[in-house]
Amino acid sequence: MIRMKTQIEQAKNGIVTPQMKRAARFEGMAEETMRARVADGSVVLMIRDDIPTAIGYGCKTKINVNLGTSSASINPAEEIEKAIIAERFGADTVSDLSMGGDIRGIRRSIFANTTLPITTVPVYQTVIEQGMVNMTCDDILDMLRQHVKEGVSSVVLHCIEKAALEKLKKQERILGMVSKGGSFTSVYMLSNGVENPFIENFDEVLEILRSNDVVLSLGNTMRSGCIHDLQDGAQMQEVTANARLAASALEGGVQTIIEGIGGHVQAAHIAEYVQYHKQRSPAPLFVAGPLPTDIALGHDHIAGAVGASMASGAGADYLCYITPAEHLKLPSPEQVKEGLMAFRIAAHIGDSIKYGVSNSDYELAKCRARMDWDGQLEYAIDCEKPKSMSPAEGPCTMCGEYCAIKIMRQYLFEEDG
Amino acid sequence: MIRMKTQIEQAKNGIVTPQMKRAARFEGMAEETMRARVADGSVVLMIRDDIPTAIGYGCKTKINVNLGTSSASINPAEEIEKAIIAERFGADTVSDLSMGGDIRGIRRSIFANTTLPITTVPVYQTVIEQGMVNMTCDDILDMLRQHVKEGVSSVVLHCIEKAALEKLKKQERILGMVSKGGSFTSVYMLSNGVENPFIENFDEVLEILRSNDVVLSLGNTMRSGCIHDLQDGAQMQEVTANARLAASALEGGVQTIIEGIGGHVQAAHIAEYVQYHKQRSPAPLFVAGPLPTDIALGHDHIAGAVGASMASGAGADYLCYITPAEHLKLPSPEQVKEGLMAFRIAAHIGDSIKYGVSNSDYELAKCRARMDWDGQLEYAIDCEKPKSMSPAEGPCTMCGEYCAIKIMRQYLFEEDG
Repeated sequence: MIRMKTQIEQAKNGIVTPQMKRAARFEGMAEETMRARVADGSVVLMIRDDIPTAIGYGCKTKINVNLGTSSASINPAEEIEKAIIAERFGADTVSDLSMGGDIRGIRRSIFANTTLPITTVPVYQTVIEQGMVNMTCDDILDMLRQHVKEGVSSVVLHCIEKAALEKLKKQERILGMVSKGGSFTSVYMLSNGVENPFIENFDEVLEILRSNDVVLSLGNTMRSGCIHDLQDGAQMQEVTANARLAASALEGGVQTIIEGIGGHVQAAHIAEYVQYHKQRSPAPLFVAGPLPTDIALGHDHIAGAVGASMASGAGADYLCYITPAEHLKLPSPEQVKEGLMAFRIAAHIGDSIKYGVSNSDYELAKCRARMDWDGQLEYAIDCEKPKSMSPAEGPCTMCGEYCAIKIMRQYLFEEDG
Repeated sequence: MIRMKTQIEQAKNGIVTPQMKRAARFEGMAEETMRARVADGSVVLMIRDDIPTAIGYGCKTKINVNLGTSSASINPAEEIEKAIIAERFGADTVSDLSMGGDIRGIRRSIFANTTLPITTVPVYQTVIEQGMVNMTCDDILDMLRQHVKEGVSSVVLHCIEKAALEKLKKQERILGMVSKGGSFTSVYMLSNGVENPFIENFDEVLEILRSNDVVLSLGNTMRSGCIHDLQDGAQMQEVTANARLAASALEGGVQTIIEGIGGHVQAAHIAEYVQYHKQRSPAPLFVAGPLPTDIALGHDHIAGAVGASMASGAGADYLCYITPAEHLKLPSPEQVKEGLMAFRIAAHIGDSIKYGVSNSDYELAKCRARMDWDGQLEYAIDCEKPKSMSPAEGPCTMCGEYCAIKIMRQYLFEEDG
């Protein structure tokens, strides 16, 4: 039997797949460049129903929307609504992080209600079904197999080494470990006195992922939970360890993303940490936020958008959005939209730094000069919220008849007022 | 009769005034440093009822909230509500830009409802009362006298040169001139074929301002209205001209702020333009936004917060907030709060770059580690919005019982769960 070849394997063999072609067209990249980047691991293709979403070097910055129930808040209909909102307002991927209710059923509904690639953290479901302390390595790998079989485009695995946990224990952190999946995996390791189940069985993990060409997302277990918890030894060790795993995965034909520099990072250091990562691995860098301040409670989507603009401008490829509910509760569907809009702005600004300014800014400005409101809405990042606020025609009510653009057109440029 | 000496004149004579002392204490700056910076024009004190608000080199980044009626939207009660919101949620100054209704009466009500320093653009009222084309130089200066006498802390004057208007006419801009006060002043100049009334009568202007120690804010007439309208010849000429005027004003004992780099600026160039300004004048730099993208219609407070974080991090001293209603309509009171919160976050991030991270981040993180919600609200930038979203105790509903911090405290750090 001939095993299906993954995108990486085909790219390495010089084959430009239909998905690479489609992604190249969307990104405005030469097909051969796309192939070469998939081959060297600097671009990954998250594929769902044969449609690729390209993430990485030279691609537009992508945005992920987290959704899903928690054990403390279970409302499947609302999670489905979030998935629909995510797709409607321009998310590139969604992560179903459900931990409450019928997890598999919710996942199935989310699949049914969006065409976006879906990422999961299989260990979440393992913990709910088997218990954090009682789950076995087989339970963990079986759940990974199940998610891959169901058609997820990507899975997050927390490949934290036992030695790194020992290092973390000695760090003087205010918030210790804030990664949920990381903490579950750590509890398994600590309770059983064993090494990391994914690292120990990395060949098997790669085999499972390869079977459906699922992207491996290496979780950022050691991310800092506040800006005073620095990029310490534990965090730096994880960067190096993940870079090594990404290289092995590439070797094994499995596309890989590294989650990093995440959590809470002082603004002055964001660019530097992005570069630190980029120097160690060509793999696309996925950042959550980062949040350059801890005090924006209730407005963390804005602080996150500032950090994400800086990070993507410095080279981060993929942003995990943050909503106004971060640190407080599961977001409402409206808050999902707010967070997504903030991060679409951040990705757009980051892309303007990485690739130069976009044509949509140019076109919107021309519509604005003409006071063409419908035209502006066409190029605006959000066509719904501004609709209710814009006048039918003429200048906006901020200036009314005293619109500088209009006045100067008449008096200086001597055009038709 | 001995004329009252201004803050600058006293500072130059080696006198540390009570206002300098108070400002120094607030900013955590030595009194002698505060005096020296007022003397060299790198810090200005906007004073109201003897209370100073220090803006400039080494001071915390300050935030201005624009409010006021327009000719197309007149609701004085709402403008007063905005002033109250501005003060309650941490604005440092407000600008009353009213152009509709009983402008003087509205200004009086705003004075009565906030203790913050108030800035006006006197030419707005002159235009409403005398007409854009019919107003005379005397009308313009009389209105300036009236505002100064009423106790404004600062006035915006658009000191654009006739030659700069000629230069603007030749620039290939999409949006021409977008400064309202700049356009009014320009129409006066163009209609009457005269030079700028403030430059022509600069000694008299200084005398008027000196009489009540009012801060001169040099308007940014030539700011760009979209990111494709670059920092062109017209804009650069204004920077140089304003730097020269600021030096003359300093000589004449009048504190001066320069509005600049404003409007819409490509993210990749924000820091560079801040430095361009700073190299030409020690005067505090006031920026509106800047907006690094034009497509964030309905969400411009977020795009503005990104630009303002970058600008203040690079050395801008004073931020003019932007609300979600920018480019669409006068903001509602709720939108004023949203814009202000976004810019408080930006100023805080900018300060972390300029001065290092703050103690409030540290204290909030410690409360977060203890799951002390009341404590977090005490250090949060907004104590109201998150209140309704935070749980009474324990971890937030995003993770519920599966809180990484809590889990790791038990299993790794072996503390009390």
